[in-house]
Amino acid sequence: MTTAAGPAKGYKALASHINSKELPWFEWFPGHYLKLCKLNPITGQIITFIKSQTGVSLAVHFHPGTVVVYTIQGAWTYDEGWVAEAGDVVFEVAGSTHSPRMCGREETIVLAIIEGALEFRDENGNVTFVENWQTLLKRYHDFCAKEGIQPVDITSFEPTSH
Amino acid sequence: MTTAAGPAKGYKALASHINSKELPWFEWFPGHYLKLCKLNPITGQIITFIKSQTGVSLAVHFHPGTVVVYTIQGAWTYDEGWVAEAGDVVFEVAGSTHSPRMCGREETIVLAIIEGALEFRDENGNVTFVENWQTLLKRYHDFCAKEGIQPVDITSFEPTSH
Amino acid sequence: MTTAAGPAKGYKALASHINSKELPWFEWFPGHYLKLCKLNPITGQIITFIKSQTGVSLAVHFHPGTVVVYTIQGAWTYDEGWVAEAGDVVFEVAGSTHSPRMCGREETIVLAIIEGALEFRDENGNVTFVENWQTLLKRYHDFCAKEGIQPVDITSFEPTSH
Amino acid sequence: MTTAAGPAKGYKALASHINSKELPWFEWFPGHYLKLCKLNPITGQIITFIKSQTGVSLAVHFHPGTVVVYTIQGAWTYDEGWVAEAGDVVFEVAGSTHSPRMCGREETIVLAIIEGALEFRDENGNVTFVENWQTLLKRYHDFCAKEGIQPVDITSFEPTSH
Repeated sequence: MTTAAGPAKGYKALASHINSKELPWFEWFPGHYLKLCKLNPITGQIITFIKSQTGVSLAVHFHPGTVVVYTIQGAWTYDEGWVAEAGDVVFEVAGSTHSPRMCGREETIVLAIIEGALEFRDENGNVTFVENWQTLLKRYHDFCAKEGIQPVDITSFEPTSH
Repeated sequence: MTTAAGPAKGYKALASHINSKELPWFEWFPGHYLKLCKLNPITGQIITFIKSQTGVSLAVHFHPGTVVVYTIQGAWTYDEGWVAEAGDVVFEVAGSTHSPRMCGREETIVLAIIEGALEFRDENGNVTFVENWQTLLKRYHDFCAKEGIQPVDITSFEPTSH
Repeated sequence: MTTAAGPAKGYKALASHINSKELPWFEWFPGHYLKLCKLNPITGQIITFIKSQTGVSLAVHFHPGTVVVYTIQGAWTYDEGWVAEAGDVVFEVAGSTHSPRMCGREETIVLAIIEGALEFRDENGNVTFVENWQTLLKRYHDFCAKEGIQPVDITSFEPTSH
Repeated sequence: MTTAAGPAKGYKALASHINSKELPWFEWFPGHYLKLCKLNPITGQIITFIKSQTGVSLAVHFHPGTVVVYTIQGAWTYDEGWVAEAGDVVFEVAGSTHSPRMCGREETIVLAIIEGALEFRDENGNVTFVENWQTLLKRYHDFCAKEGIQPVDITSFEPTSH
């Protein structure tokens, strides 16, 4: 199953290459930072890195769709009997509610693929606000405007060509 | 947005924790190895690690659905002008055809989230065989049977509890 | 492309047949009725018929994921310049907010395929409650319990065989 | 849950209205006709009406992703013990292979929502050709060119406004 080197003849890879070194981290909540990779304005899929300081938690939130989390560095837990360490994958079915707590010795960095939204809740279970592709795009654009950075079009799925 | 430690009160995280250290690598094609994490028997979603030796390529294949690739180690390219290095994300829209070539100095390891299938093609563009959740599950079960390992139910989305 | 009659040799269709005549309508809100077909407990996909009396509206709600609506009977509008009539399809991208108003002369019946949830909002834009695969399943089970009906397992994707 | 008429204040419905009367039927295979509604060039989702003459079958094909079929008129079967009639929904999990046979007294019309592709197979199970969002778009454009019709942009998910 090994082919000679070179692009597949007559085909297009239709691949968008996201060079993570070219995208910025920006503060999401105190102790939590985002590096957005892609936002799908049709389906609402969110592909983002999340970096969190040691010891912090993210407030309780609900996910109407699935979430896949790959842990790159550090460790975190929902305090349900397991800890996600570097190299682990966590799959969350639609309808999960949780509050991840960072429990590693260094900053925790994950790649998260979120279908739809994060809905933060108060102590009574009421939704306080909803984070989705639209609100995250605004956060990124606001950060770029403040820093004088030209934003990358992270909602585009055009193939990368250099 | 930081809460006290402990599980979110009254909620279930509905999360399946995949401890990557407990899952086996098995040979897929010469020079290429898989570590399957989850196979969704309803939607056909495939979540898998792929490890490839330096210098090898994977034969030309077509994807009817999307692919998200996170590069953990090494480097690879479609020879279309960019190289995916450790930390990068590649998003492939439905209908892509390509032959990834490993171009790093060490083994390349990626996490791939594939919707649907990989369809390998011969030099004339004809489909030689199709790899999907069903065929990959059989590969994993065959490997476990040969090695005398008890397979994990990677098609289950039940929450992890210890 | 026409084959002889009979099942495809050696293959399984893996199809779940939902006989709409065997599933019940139940009241959702005054003037609105649901007939649930399938709820996907992994992805959160909701496949349901919705029947609404003439002249009523459904309260303002937000969708974190996509919605596909096929209109079977009647007519409805978001008062944005078009009317969906019998035979029409409406595709809503993730992040839409709206209040459908029935504007036909007879009851409106639609088939809706909803990824994730419906989130109802008050006049200030605050989320009043969230409807998803879990809450809808409870509504269906509560209705069946009250009526003494044996519920169908609408979360199962096992192939139908008689 | 009933609101006053009028668009939801301050919100956008983000809805694309597909007036089925404005889209053309075109021949797909002898005895089978398509009316394409939407093709998602990112995910590969296909939303299409299919009309088939009485008594014909569609050749054996495989689906790498899910299929939802709503039967509008007529009847069809996979000859596995059930018949889909007008009003019924069929859900096919990823990896299904089948050959639908029309068994109603009138033309069969269905709405199909297909994730990814249809892969036609010969008697030996070999893939003869693959139909996906790209090939279907070409069929539609070829038909429009031949008939001198201006094609609608069925790959756009921009909201409809008149």
